Amino acid sequence: MVRHGMAGMAPIAALGVCVVVVFAFASLGLASAEGEIDEAIKYATERHQQYVDELIELVKIPSISTLPEHEGDMRKAANWVAGRCRKAGLENVEVLETGAQPIVYCDYIHAEGAPTVLIYAHYDVQPADPFELWDHEPFEARSRNGRVEGRGASDDKSGVLLSIQAAEAVLQTSGGKLPVNVKYLLEGQEEIGSPNLEDFLSKSENQNRFAADLCFSADGGQLSEKQPRVITSLRGLAAVEVKVKTANSDMHSGTFGGAAPNALHVIADMVASLHDADGKVNIPGFYDDVALMTQQEKDNTEFPDELFEQGMRQDGVRAFPGERGFGSYERTTVRPTLEITGLWGGFQGDGVKTIVPKEASVKIACRLVANQEAGKIQQLVRDHITKIAPDYAELTFTGGSFDKAQPYAVGFDAPSSVIAKKVLEDTFKEPALFLKMGGTIPAMKLFREKVGAESALLGFSEADNLLHAPNEFMRESIYHRGREVYIRLFHEVANYHHGTAAGKEEL
Amino acid sequence: MVRHGMAGMAPIAALGVCVVVVFAFASLGLASAEGEIDEAIKYATERHQQYVDELIELVKIPSISTLPEHEGDMRKAANWVAGRCRKAGLENVEVLETGAQPIVYCDYIHAEGAPTVLIYAHYDVQPADPFELWDHEPFEARSRNGRVEGRGASDDKSGVLLSIQAAEAVLQTSGGKLPVNVKYLLEGQEEIGSPNLEDFLSKSENQNRFAADLCFSADGGQLSEKQPRVITSLRGLAAVEVKVKTANSDMHSGTFGGAAPNALHVIADMVASLHDADGKVNIPGFYDDVALMTQQEKDNTEFPDELFEQGMRQDGVRAFPGERGFGSYERTTVRPTLEITGLWGGFQGDGVKTIVPKEASVKIACRLVANQEAGKIQQLVRDHITKIAPDYAELTFTGGSFDKAQPYAVGFDAPSSVIAKKVLEDTFKEPALFLKMGGTIPAMKLFREKVGAESALLGFSEADNLLHAPNEFMRESIYHRGREVYIRLFHEVANYHHGTAAGKEEL
Repeated sequence: MVRHGMAGMAPIAALGVCVVVVFAFASLGLASAEGEIDEAIKYATERHQQYVDELIELVKIPSISTLPEHEGDMRKAANWVAGRCRKAGLENVEVLETGAQPIVYCDYIHAEGAPTVLIYAHYDVQPADPFELWDHEPFEARSRNGRVEGRGASDDKSGVLLSIQAAEAVLQTSGGKLPVNVKYLLEGQEEIGSPNLEDFLSKSENQNRFAADLCFSADGGQLSEKQPRVITSLRGLAAVEVKVKTANSDMHSGTFGGAAPNALHVIADMVASLHDADGKVNIPGFYDDVALMTQQEKDNTEFPDELFEQGMRQDGVRAFPGERGFGSYERTTVRPTLEITGLWGGFQGDGVKTIVPKEASVKIACRLVANQEAGKIQQLVRDHITKIAPDYAELTFTGGSFDKAQPYAVGFDAPSSVIAKKVLEDTFKEPALFLKMGGTIPAMKLFREKVGAESALLGFSEADNLLHAPNEFMRESIYHRGREVYIRLFHEVANYHHGTAAGKEEL
Repeated sequence: MVRHGMAGMAPIAALGVCVVVVFAFASLGLASAEGEIDEAIKYATERHQQYVDELIELVKIPSISTLPEHEGDMRKAANWVAGRCRKAGLENVEVLETGAQPIVYCDYIHAEGAPTVLIYAHYDVQPADPFELWDHEPFEARSRNGRVEGRGASDDKSGVLLSIQAAEAVLQTSGGKLPVNVKYLLEGQEEIGSPNLEDFLSKSENQNRFAADLCFSADGGQLSEKQPRVITSLRGLAAVEVKVKTANSDMHSGTFGGAAPNALHVIADMVASLHDADGKVNIPGFYDDVALMTQQEKDNTEFPDELFEQGMRQDGVRAFPGERGFGSYERTTVRPTLEITGLWGGFQGDGVKTIVPKEASVKIACRLVANQEAGKIQQLVRDHITKIAPDYAELTFTGGSFDKAQPYAVGFDAPSSVIAKKVLEDTFKEPALFLKMGGTIPAMKLFREKVGAESALLGFSEADNLLHAPNEFMRESIYHRGREVYIRLFHEVANYHHGTAAGKEEL
């Protein structure tokens, strides 16, 4: 509307017309869609208890992707999810082999000329240990005080289910009509870094099968239920593990201490040198490919430092010593980091053991941002460590699988972002904010590269849901609202497409 | 003889006379003693097989002082040793309570006017893990290729037995006459730092019981059987353990990495700062009380860097980066050190776990030299760490028992040193060298303070005996020679005493 008033300069006028046309068209589309959306939401609302029961049932299958002994549970969960897709009326349901944990596929492709939406979620979960910190058996899921409690209730079995249930609600109330084409990719490897997904999506049969115009991930988060957020970027990961060896045996610290090299001294010196006094990563080239935010991007993105730091303070954190010149939230989302995630060597038992340790190991995990490339950073870190290590230390680099993921960022003005914002606002009745996320979901970057679809993260795990930790839970209220968001999404994508297409014709 | 030729200046002439008198007296004493020594050695030689069998029998008792489940074995070993003392003809044998692992006492006090010698050894042993690296069950002791193999065979059950067997050989061949008075203190806490020994020796009844003129420790080492050494100093120990905590929970490195403090970063920074670029301990005051060697002491002491480094090279060590300005052997004997003996935090399992670790721990062991005081250094280290730690890190110092031992040094011209050198030379037929040792035996300093006796370390573990490590062994040849050394010792102490007493009269 503002632009309309600015008519005068030709291109802007044209744009103004376009906007008006879009608006008019969208209003028309919305008018007819609103009734269908209301019907679908009514259908879903009547089934809230059933949907909670379904989440409990799925959480009870301990589909822990990282533990080989749960391979059978992975199959069981995949088959359960496939069955739920069929029950929803979705078609071509298949449990596809990846060489490891399978992918559940289904689609509903009857909206000729309409765009195709890929919906992503994952049915695998984190391990549940330490068990002693749980208030109940982690896989004995239960509903209590408006929450479904259990490992995976929030991350991401709620996402799997609410996105399927949304399609069901629309199909059941529209006589089997979806306003867009939809495909589901429900994977079982997210918690282990999706190691087989790239090869899987590189096969031409799968590139065809999953071809889509845009993607929405039902794995993702909200800071709270009060005000909704669309997440527009994810960090990547480049992990390196190195063992430093300075002798074949631990030596007696009395006899040899002072003369024999100490592997822990070597590793501590190296680790301490990896950050400079400003908290910057002290590896030449580390920041070379980091994309800086534009002012427009900054203006359109929320950096909720206070809320974020408050949460950490409640967990006993007293200060936030990070990269100088950036706020806490920026540091965890638009800046790359190098974290020591594990370090050990020598004697760890009770009391004193007087040794000069022969070896020590360190695990390093770099979080990457656009446009860093995970393999390049991994090599940079390895080369740097090799360079700074003293000659007398023997280095062994280990790891090599599940240790890389590319960062992903999409504009706040991309169709997926705009659509996600709209359906969140319609559902939550609050302005939706754009937010960046520090974590990693490897699939998003792969969808861009292999399927040609940009993604919005439209998930409903909340910041306090204890993901990956004991006593994970999902609030039933946001589980239900998330479903409404997806019900609206199918219509909004169609709507946006019509609007854009019309606009394009005008232009 | 050289001094005799320097007659002219009065004091030196007097000293010359003294030396001559000593020499004459000693020759006389030796003449009559030689026969007795030969008899005793003959007696012992005829029993070599029996003595080996006894060592095997004692090693089979797993007297591991640090493991509570071996408390019964500690008693069993103490009683076995007490029985062996009785069998040797030693008197007043008692198993004395210390509040923990008992001390075996016995004596033979029939040489009126002669000095009293305290003999020290320990019957406790190190744990045997890692078991998988042993060629046989560690406590299934056996004799093979001229070695007794098993945990404790060398350290220090050989010392316990050879010193008792030596007294037996003399008593059995002299009609029950020992030329000196002798007392044995055979303890069960050496491997855990003798935590109860100070309190035990502080009791007046024990100060009387153990009162002695000088002490010889049958716990100690030789570099090899070719050339014997007397050890004249031991390093002390001041251990500190600290846990650094930066949050109540491990945090997700994606969500929080870059903003939340990382306990491993904090601990690595602190550890790296504890040494400067010259390899010196970077804690103000650390070197304040370090005694520097006199030129005379240097001239009389061996620093076998080459032999020492060669041993380490065989164990895979490639370089010797220690305190600048000192050789390898000096660094481990007359210079104090600060070693990180253990450090750990975060995830140590296979693969990648993307956390920001909430806590990390480090074990620090300082080796001390005369005249450093263990408690003072411990406090210095704690205060320094507290000072350099960032405000947001919560420190918890743990440990507090078995974490301190005082250094000990005695002159190469002290009676114990001179006597030890003489009996080694008489037995090995090679010049004996004075050597310093990097390890710790808390008892020596306590004998000086509580019993008034200076000590020489006269033990026969060899550098390659794999003490504290898998496949520990004792060479039977040096086990037998060590016994001969102690047989000679009883006579040599009497001899030296007569000589000195005569000299003193002359002076």
